[in-house]
Amino acid sequence: MAGFFGGNRRTMSFAAWGWFFLGMLPTLLALGGGTGVCAELSADSRACMECHATVTPGIVADWEKSAHARVSPADAAGKGALERRVSFEKLPDKLGGSSVGCAECHTLNPDDHKDGIEHQGYPVHPVVSPADCAVCHPVERNQYNENLMAHAYADLTANSLYRDLKDSINGVQVMEKGKLAARPSERTTDEDSCLACHGTVVEVAGTVSRSTEMGDMEFPVLTGWPNQGVGRINPDGSKGCCSSCHTRHQFSIETARKPATCSQCHKGPDVPAYKVYSVSKHGNVYASVEKEWNFHNVPWTVGKDFTAPTCAACHMSLVVSTDGQVISQRSHGAADRLPWRIFGLIYSHAHPKSPDTSIIRNAEGLPLPTSLDGKPAAGFLIDAAEQDKRKARMEKLCLSCHSRGWVDGHWARFVDTLRVTDAMTLTATRMVMTAWEKGLAKGLAQKGNVFDEAIEKKWVEQWLFYANSTRFSAAMSGADYGVFADGRWSMSKNVRDMQDWLDSRTGGAGK
Amino acid sequence: MAGFFGGNRRTMSFAAWGWFFLGMLPTLLALGGGTGVCAELSADSRACMECHATVTPGIVADWEKSAHARVSPADAAGKGALERRVSFEKLPDKLGGSSVGCAECHTLNPDDHKDGIEHQGYPVHPVVSPADCAVCHPVERNQYNENLMAHAYADLTANSLYRDLKDSINGVQVMEKGKLAARPSERTTDEDSCLACHGTVVEVAGTVSRSTEMGDMEFPVLTGWPNQGVGRINPDGSKGCCSSCHTRHQFSIETARKPATCSQCHKGPDVPAYKVYSVSKHGNVYASVEKEWNFHNVPWTVGKDFTAPTCAACHMSLVVSTDGQVISQRSHGAADRLPWRIFGLIYSHAHPKSPDTSIIRNAEGLPLPTSLDGKPAAGFLIDAAEQDKRKARMEKLCLSCHSRGWVDGHWARFVDTLRVTDAMTLTATRMVMTAWEKGLAKGLAQKGNVFDEAIEKKWVEQWLFYANSTRFSAAMSGADYGVFADGRWSMSKNVRDMQDWLDSRTGGAGK
Amino acid sequence: MAGFFGGNRRTMSFAAWGWFFLGMLPTLLALGGGTGVCAELSADSRACMECHATVTPGIVADWEKSAHARVSPADAAGKGALERRVSFEKLPDKLGGSSVGCAECHTLNPDDHKDGIEHQGYPVHPVVSPADCAVCHPVERNQYNENLMAHAYADLTANSLYRDLKDSINGVQVMEKGKLAARPSERTTDEDSCLACHGTVVEVAGTVSRSTEMGDMEFPVLTGWPNQGVGRINPDGSKGCCSSCHTRHQFSIETARKPATCSQCHKGPDVPAYKVYSVSKHGNVYASVEKEWNFHNVPWTVGKDFTAPTCAACHMSLVVSTDGQVISQRSHGAADRLPWRIFGLIYSHAHPKSPDTSIIRNAEGLPLPTSLDGKPAAGFLIDAAEQDKRKARMEKLCLSCHSRGWVDGHWARFVDTLRVTDAMTLTATRMVMTAWEKGLAKGLAQKGNVFDEAIEKKWVEQWLFYANSTRFSAAMSGADYGVFADGRWSMSKNVRDMQDWLDSRTGGAGK
Repeated sequence: MAGFFGGNRRTMSFAAWGWFFLGMLPTLLALGGGTGVCAELSADSRACMECHATVTPGIVADWEKSAHARVSPADAAGKGALERRVSFEKLPDKLGGSSVGCAECHTLNPDDHKDGIEHQGYPVHPVVSPADCAVCHPVERNQYNENLMAHAYADLTANSLYRDLKDSINGVQVMEKGKLAARPSERTTDEDSCLACHGTVVEVAGTVSRSTEMGDMEFPVLTGWPNQGVGRINPDGSKGCCSSCHTRHQFSIETARKPATCSQCHKGPDVPAYKVYSVSKHGNVYASVEKEWNFHNVPWTVGKDFTAPTCAACHMSLVVSTDGQVISQRSHGAADRLPWRIFGLIYSHAHPKSPDTSIIRNAEGLPLPTSLDGKPAAGFLIDAAEQDKRKARMEKLCLSCHSRGWVDGHWARFVDTLRVTDAMTLTATRMVMTAWEKGLAKGLAQKGNVFDEAIEKKWVEQWLFYANSTRFSAAMSGADYGVFADGRWSMSKNVRDMQDWLDSRTGGAGK
Repeated sequence: MAGFFGGNRRTMSFAAWGWFFLGMLPTLLALGGGTGVCAELSADSRACMECHATVTPGIVADWEKSAHARVSPADAAGKGALERRVSFEKLPDKLGGSSVGCAECHTLNPDDHKDGIEHQGYPVHPVVSPADCAVCHPVERNQYNENLMAHAYADLTANSLYRDLKDSINGVQVMEKGKLAARPSERTTDEDSCLACHGTVVEVAGTVSRSTEMGDMEFPVLTGWPNQGVGRINPDGSKGCCSSCHTRHQFSIETARKPATCSQCHKGPDVPAYKVYSVSKHGNVYASVEKEWNFHNVPWTVGKDFTAPTCAACHMSLVVSTDGQVISQRSHGAADRLPWRIFGLIYSHAHPKSPDTSIIRNAEGLPLPTSLDGKPAAGFLIDAAEQDKRKARMEKLCLSCHSRGWVDGHWARFVDTLRVTDAMTLTATRMVMTAWEKGLAKGLAQKGNVFDEAIEKKWVEQWLFYANSTRFSAAMSGADYGVFADGRWSMSKNVRDMQDWLDSRTGGAGK
Repeated sequence: MAGFFGGNRRTMSFAAWGWFFLGMLPTLLALGGGTGVCAELSADSRACMECHATVTPGIVADWEKSAHARVSPADAAGKGALERRVSFEKLPDKLGGSSVGCAECHTLNPDDHKDGIEHQGYPVHPVVSPADCAVCHPVERNQYNENLMAHAYADLTANSLYRDLKDSINGVQVMEKGKLAARPSERTTDEDSCLACHGTVVEVAGTVSRSTEMGDMEFPVLTGWPNQGVGRINPDGSKGCCSSCHTRHQFSIETARKPATCSQCHKGPDVPAYKVYSVSKHGNVYASVEKEWNFHNVPWTVGKDFTAPTCAACHMSLVVSTDGQVISQRSHGAADRLPWRIFGLIYSHAHPKSPDTSIIRNAEGLPLPTSLDGKPAAGFLIDAAEQDKRKARMEKLCLSCHSRGWVDGHWARFVDTLRVTDAMTLTATRMVMTAWEKGLAKGLAQKGNVFDEAIEKKWVEQWLFYANSTRFSAAMSGADYGVFADGRWSMSKNVRDMQDWLDSRTGGAGK
């Protein structure tokens, strides 16, 4: 097929090389290009480029700035253990001395890809999956498979209570006979909301023929597409989406290391990690002087490459000291350095053992990691020893800049805040249970959706917004996010409003 | 008058040139200075500088970094069609080979400027208007005249319903005989709030004499000043304010192309465009790697100059591909690539035909683009063919990086979200109408302001904040702004709260 | 003790120098290094480095990028009056020709430091205090002592009403016999919330022995630690924490001059200065082009070093014009250029005379700068003449870029907004007083906490969030923060909700 366009296949490439050496010089140096010679594009990828340099020029120019465009897997494999960015043991078939271009990824593992289609003579699939990336990066994919994020789709949709929460938010509500009734949540709505982050199910619904500049062509029709959610279910059966953080088509480690990447899903009131970080001392240092940091070096040297941690530094990156000692190993399991899970659930709790949280049952038989009074479903959660291990991993990073006394003081406050926020949530929970008991709302006993009525929604905000925000603030020293910005102020106001609501309906004090 | 200060008029300029060649070298290169020789200041502008380099040193030093300081209109006119930043056909009188300094703008069109005053021998006006800018940039001004933004003052104040909304927000409320009463909204308050973005009416109220270092001088006294709102009514009768986005006195295209500029008016809960963009993949790429982009090149090359769009790239800029093909023409009509208007009104709807929206009447005779049940006032809105044309313009940009399947999937979800958010708004509208019918609030039939009572304000938030936020999220893939950050969560909670309010006052279910 | 590690003490330093001359060249140039020779580390600090380069590598590498690492106090003292960054008259003992390393600060003033401990032969204290910094920077410390911020701890905790507010937010609320009861606020909670910004009391609770790589060592155990609040009470009795803004261990003036630093405490709904700045024209210019500014130069030249002010530029920095004239003197008293206090209290008012605000009593005998109806406690507040003086200082900065007419118009609107927001607060105050009178809530007469009940919390939000936000918006032209983003919309909605609440409990109109 490539021959169809024949002739001067290198035209585009020459332009590309010129651009490289002007614009990418600093990055090239950072990547330690060794010989300084860039890897060549494979013949297959050159064939792609013949059209796509014109058809999708933005994406091609973007890729040209990537490490994939410059470094072949063979060259990448030749680095030292800490510098190495690929993790295969043996050079994969077909991925040898050429750069990692269009064809290398989009024609990989053709037998697994239900979204694959014959395109200009090649078996091309649009949805490059973690299983494809794993050909060169198997260790990272395996770590990620144990990450809650990889399971974010089923953890939401296969949990009857979370599904109720989702439906109470997404289902269109209509007036029927003077009462509000909620229609079922629609697939498109779910995909545009929760599943944007949790990940959609991408399936092949058929094919479509389109007229293009190159004549009529067949393309797959995909459901749940586009999507870059962390727990996407791909047409090859794999879970996840590496480009959630390693954004196409530069796949720049700089992007993955910067907090804006995490903010895509972690900025809202339900998980205000980015907002809290922004007002923390770490976030301030980042905002003030990050332009002088090096976001490309692997490994990443604390104090030299960066002078305050980003999200990645604490939770994922391979970090070394100025004398080259490993402070923390690279991890794609975001909870590997976290003893506690502090958001998304009613109470804080030790992290689940399995990333598949839909299997959890609390003492009441509900798919929750704690009872409604906060008691942990201990059998499904990591034990104290494992918590200590994870805490120690995190602390090793803290201690690269802070004294033991500083770190201990910080942790003590954080753990105390878990206790206090859980207590404030318990108070709200008792109120909503009172509403259920008195018939002011339909609760578990009445087989109601426990998240859909006015008083229930106040209860949800107590833990899903305010207690969470307060905990994030304690975790990262975010000050006001523990007070007036969805913090303790909101918790205290909310229980007063709930009590006021109850009082006005039961002849209580406020009446 | 210039002679008054006599002597060495170039002193300041020498300092300026030194600064240029050190600090502005990269920008100079980007502007493709041709001969490398900077345009000279006119004698008139040199006269201004004699004092103003001392009197307002910040503004002078800022201007010295501008393209206006370096490039004369004559030089600017000599560029190729795509590179050209001026759009006049014939070199304007008096604006020839010298740079565009103080006098070039502030003494232009003296006969039209009611704010003009004799100042040191020159007819100086403080309010440089789009009509002044149009001397060199007529095409852009004409495009902008068709932009809703240019009409933002009257679109707000000449619409009786919007005026009611404004008054319900800005009028001071006082207790009178145990009841809340709203005083009329004051001019100063309007100017400090809505009109900060919509634009004030700038009029000459008189003149004032002030003692200055140069002796007593007369100055005009302006009402509605200062203001940089997009629909400002200027003393010369023109509408708009180019420096809303092309900030004085660098007038840097870099600033206009960066999203922070749009955030000045598009960040609040009523129009959270910037917030949604920030957590989108595009916004993340911008935040992570924009420091490597070129914001000065004209035309702007996708993938090369920038690797993810900013607000300007999608809505306004002249964008070309790496091989120089035009992907989108420059436009100063922000809706030229938009089929739908998604914010500020009760329901989403096709864009109005005329930028003067005060002429619109819906089926009920109200100045709204839809009826209260969502039916479009079709005669005043663009038709499906025009919508398709605008959609095609936008898609051409999308397709420079994304496949047709990706783009179709994105649009399908977006349009679906318009339907769902409109349905959720309809439910809230029916509730407020129930309140009006039952005498719980004063509605249209009772000649009440329909935005000022407690239940009405909940209704307003349903569409003005939550439905809008959800639509912006769908438009730009902003995830949480469609769920917990003022999105579907808030829509679903709000209708429950409204129902709860109605129930408690009518003996309904919640009582 | 240093001898214990013996041998090649310079190893680390050699690496450091290499790093300096590559990475810090621009900064070195900005600092005007004179001879270009960096100051040497003292023997004592070299001893610290022997271990700490390994034990806390991040902090050491961070310090190596600081001016402290390069410039000795002696060299710093040799600069001209405007360039000088130290303010001592006579070179302090022991701080001579060597750089300012670990030992210089952490062993200073040993007799005053209750947190000092014998550490490897040195009297080391962990908490470096303003009194320590004052050895080289006495003028700045003295200015800061007059700053409200230095008194932020007692201004909160020694004021019975503010303490009530704090307790109503931080105390755990529990259901007791069907009623909500608030437990006392716990020390750890206070430290994790309000005191994170206001400052904790750092006291020595004892010592602890820890096994380290260097054997067993004694360390002080500190309460209230870690903390970087602006009014921290230090173990040496001093107030404040210079590293709140001059972040350890680079202490970079760049960081202090950037708005993210202020956002650490000034971003929440109670004091949205940063958010308002972000959407202001000044903030937009900063966001768009600050990468081209020089944040290191002292003095700071308007228009040349920066083209729009940051927080520091208006409130603290030494700013000069392009011809070297002083526009504003450096100040560490944040209110020196502010006639009005616009946040944190019920009504806006002239700034307090004394930074110790706990001494203030209003006409009702309450520790508030105004009566409940807004009348100022004039005896405790600066008079009109002092207000004019402060206004003139601020205006001098405005006038370096803006005309007198512009500045007057801006101030007139701002002052008008104070009046309007105070009027809207008065309406809310009258409502809460009605609730107290009618027994719907416990007020002052009933010896109740006036901030803890549902209706009271609505009242608090009226002034603490919405009126404040509106004033900040007026002060900095933040548009939507005066309307829909916690501004006038919220004020008008809140009084309607309060009235609705009253009506529904008193048989009023809404019932």
